[in-house]
Amino acid sequence: MSTQALTNPAVDFSEWYNEVVYRADLADHSPVRGCIIVKPYGYELWDNIKNALDRRFKATGHQNAYFPLFIPKSYLEREAEHVEGFSPELAVVTIGGGKALEEPLVVRPTSETIIGEAMAKWIQSYRDLPLLLNQWANVVRWEMRTRPFLRTTEFLWQEGHTAHATEEEAEAETLQMLDVYADMVVNDAAIPVIRGLKHETEKFAGALRTYTIEAMMGDKRALQSGTSHNLGQNFAKAFNMQYLDKNNQLQNCWTTSWGLSWRVIGGIVMAHGDEKGLKLPPRLAPYQAVIVPIFRNDDERGTVLDAVETLKKALLAADVRVHVDNRDYQPGYKFNDWEMRGVPVRLELGPRDVQNGTVVAGRRDIPGKEGKRFLQQADIAAQVKLLLEEIQANMLAQATAFRDANIFDVHSYDELRSVVEAGGFARGWWNGSNEDIARIKQETSATHRCYPLEQPGGEGVCFMSGKPASQIAIFARAY
Amino acid sequence: MSTQALTNPAVDFSEWYNEVVYRADLADHSPVRGCIIVKPYGYELWDNIKNALDRRFKATGHQNAYFPLFIPKSYLEREAEHVEGFSPELAVVTIGGGKALEEPLVVRPTSETIIGEAMAKWIQSYRDLPLLLNQWANVVRWEMRTRPFLRTTEFLWQEGHTAHATEEEAEAETLQMLDVYADMVVNDAAIPVIRGLKHETEKFAGALRTYTIEAMMGDKRALQSGTSHNLGQNFAKAFNMQYLDKNNQLQNCWTTSWGLSWRVIGGIVMAHGDEKGLKLPPRLAPYQAVIVPIFRNDDERGTVLDAVETLKKALLAADVRVHVDNRDYQPGYKFNDWEMRGVPVRLELGPRDVQNGTVVAGRRDIPGKEGKRFLQQADIAAQVKLLLEEIQANMLAQATAFRDANIFDVHSYDELRSVVEAGGFARGWWNGSNEDIARIKQETSATHRCYPLEQPGGEGVCFMSGKPASQIAIFARAY
Repeated sequence: MSTQALTNPAVDFSEWYNEVVYRADLADHSPVRGCIIVKPYGYELWDNIKNALDRRFKATGHQNAYFPLFIPKSYLEREAEHVEGFSPELAVVTIGGGKALEEPLVVRPTSETIIGEAMAKWIQSYRDLPLLLNQWANVVRWEMRTRPFLRTTEFLWQEGHTAHATEEEAEAETLQMLDVYADMVVNDAAIPVIRGLKHETEKFAGALRTYTIEAMMGDKRALQSGTSHNLGQNFAKAFNMQYLDKNNQLQNCWTTSWGLSWRVIGGIVMAHGDEKGLKLPPRLAPYQAVIVPIFRNDDERGTVLDAVETLKKALLAADVRVHVDNRDYQPGYKFNDWEMRGVPVRLELGPRDVQNGTVVAGRRDIPGKEGKRFLQQADIAAQVKLLLEEIQANMLAQATAFRDANIFDVHSYDELRSVVEAGGFARGWWNGSNEDIARIKQETSATHRCYPLEQPGGEGVCFMSGKPASQIAIFARAY
Repeated sequence: MSTQALTNPAVDFSEWYNEVVYRADLADHSPVRGCIIVKPYGYELWDNIKNALDRRFKATGHQNAYFPLFIPKSYLEREAEHVEGFSPELAVVTIGGGKALEEPLVVRPTSETIIGEAMAKWIQSYRDLPLLLNQWANVVRWEMRTRPFLRTTEFLWQEGHTAHATEEEAEAETLQMLDVYADMVVNDAAIPVIRGLKHETEKFAGALRTYTIEAMMGDKRALQSGTSHNLGQNFAKAFNMQYLDKNNQLQNCWTTSWGLSWRVIGGIVMAHGDEKGLKLPPRLAPYQAVIVPIFRNDDERGTVLDAVETLKKALLAADVRVHVDNRDYQPGYKFNDWEMRGVPVRLELGPRDVQNGTVVAGRRDIPGKEGKRFLQQADIAAQVKLLLEEIQANMLAQATAFRDANIFDVHSYDELRSVVEAGGFARGWWNGSNEDIARIKQETSATHRCYPLEQPGGEGVCFMSGKPASQIAIFARAY
């Protein structure tokens, strides 16, 4: 770990973010343009996110499958908006086995097309519906500006793809998966989100409607953290995905897709991190607790390490993800390191603790003395588990309070400008034109994030156009 | 499910294999040359294999990480044997974001080079060693002839990459991971393996030594099911992977790599399958037990489905992976389908069983009446778990007996020829030349599979060259 001070996030959030990603050992630079190396600590975090989602996907009846990395170029061209949306971002394989390929292969930027083709083959009758698939995979989008986890040329994600008999079922699925994302991000990542509908100018290429979960980062910008698309019959028609209904009539399917990527790791860094580094929510942290043994000589060493081993076993037996830091460094160095890496609970154990049957516990979410307390060795597992729950709840409460304090109702373009300039989400009645949205983006860098699903109801006046409006929208600068 | 009879494996094993893969719903054809679609049933099997290995990797101190899909072409060229070995198989990205790339990017065929570069950066001193990494990833090799799971252009696998301070440690790691593979394949996949050393003509491009686990398939051919490579200092030197030792001297690292792919799925199909289809080992089967409800009318339906639900809950609570087949088909159709898909235990429950508190259990590994027995509903979980253990053990015993009955000691080239022609592994003293190996391959299609690690000791006479020999080798036709 570098001993240089971390950049203050209040001074340069962007620089702070990069430093935390690398110094907390989540990732490293790679020699490939726009690609990162995910180090073990970052990968374990992703694995925990993955498991948290996969469990929810299975509980809602989805199954995993795996489709080819390569997509024939002609497939992407079958759905008009889709090809237009993705063409500028494609990586293309033109040589295979030493020879030029007859048809170039695109490295998947997303798999609607190749999965659509397969589903069309698998679906014959209404009995085959709904078809509920998910894929864990790497995808590639040739981005011009990249940032670790937030926007990388290659990234890991999951993409769900489902087919349904009716429009209503497809819409219900789209919203269900949005809720699954919200449930994971709120309850496991401890990040509050606004579930909303994307404006048509911001929807997925080829979708009828795109829903989003939008979170607020520490610099008050928005992070789109997962999206769920109702694809209508656009892909079904492009790929002849049809079924025989109960009356033996051929019908087009209705499809959905939904994706969440390792971008959420960036969200965790930016929603919770502070001037000391990363702060991980206990439910997703690779290590929920770290034990730092403290001793001055070999005598003490033996006694302390024995007690540490007992603690570790008790915690492991209770399914606490615990790590013992036995490295040949001073305790102070270790404390800083685990603070930087965001471990929720730090346990210190010295010779006096061995005598007293105690352990000193420090909380990452409450710094200094205020967060410290003595725990009893005899009852360590139950106490640490309770502590982890407290931390999880406190992190969500803190992030929610911060978010709520930084959403402002606006009634004019001027008010929006000052909210956006000062930092925060601007919320107001919206019935403006696409040109209005373009102007706001041009002049303030803020974008239409979404129409929140929770609406006040009634009617208002659009803060931009002055026209009657039936919905409020959120505008903010975003990642 | 097709109702056409399955090709008899004794008549055309190769055709039988393809039919089982597709009809057991493991995979489907894809529109991309040499690539397959892994369907949910096949993916779940792979996930179980993955978990079975990952657990063992973690227990031996390894951590997962993720490295870029793309490798700059120049990286592959740094190790002479490596580039020569992989060049004919590469898929190359030449266009990104609509522009020709200055340096083409190779889609990883394996990641020694890009991981070697990163490890070189991470390793400074002896304190950083050993560095024990693993990656779960997709890789691409442009194969001329492909077969589902056994040889595909894109495949899923894991690749371990480790760095050590000494040659001894690297060799110990190489052998340890070979043992990890053997342990998983033997104890979870129920396939006996021969652990052995690859002949120098068959080793990994750039390795000092390659170890292998070789299994016998139902047609008596060999399947190389996992390999572990001692890379010596070849890659360490190519990538300047050096460390300061305790005396502050700069030393080159010693590295290893080891990989196992979804090829093992092909191994499971071919080692256990029969004329009725797939036969899955309980420890890896997506469904360990399937319940088929049997009823003639709506009255019976209600009673039976209630009892089925109770059974299901009891089995799930005991961590048995159980599935209820509620499809609108006749029981006979369902029985055949689950036989084809290789589910270890089939549970039938009709109205009379409800009255008697019984369930009829059928075993996939023992066909017909012989494998049938009545179980008690009240004690279903314990009985099914016991049954699953019996099946697991029986499948390994059957595969081992078959394998052992088809390994023959040979003392002359003629004997080898007749063993290979009739089918089986030929085992004999070996001290032949590379030309001898080429001749055997040319004339019999058999290859030098390995020098088994378990050697009889002493000296013998090479069956080919007549020279004194200190080791026995295995020759066989292989996948």
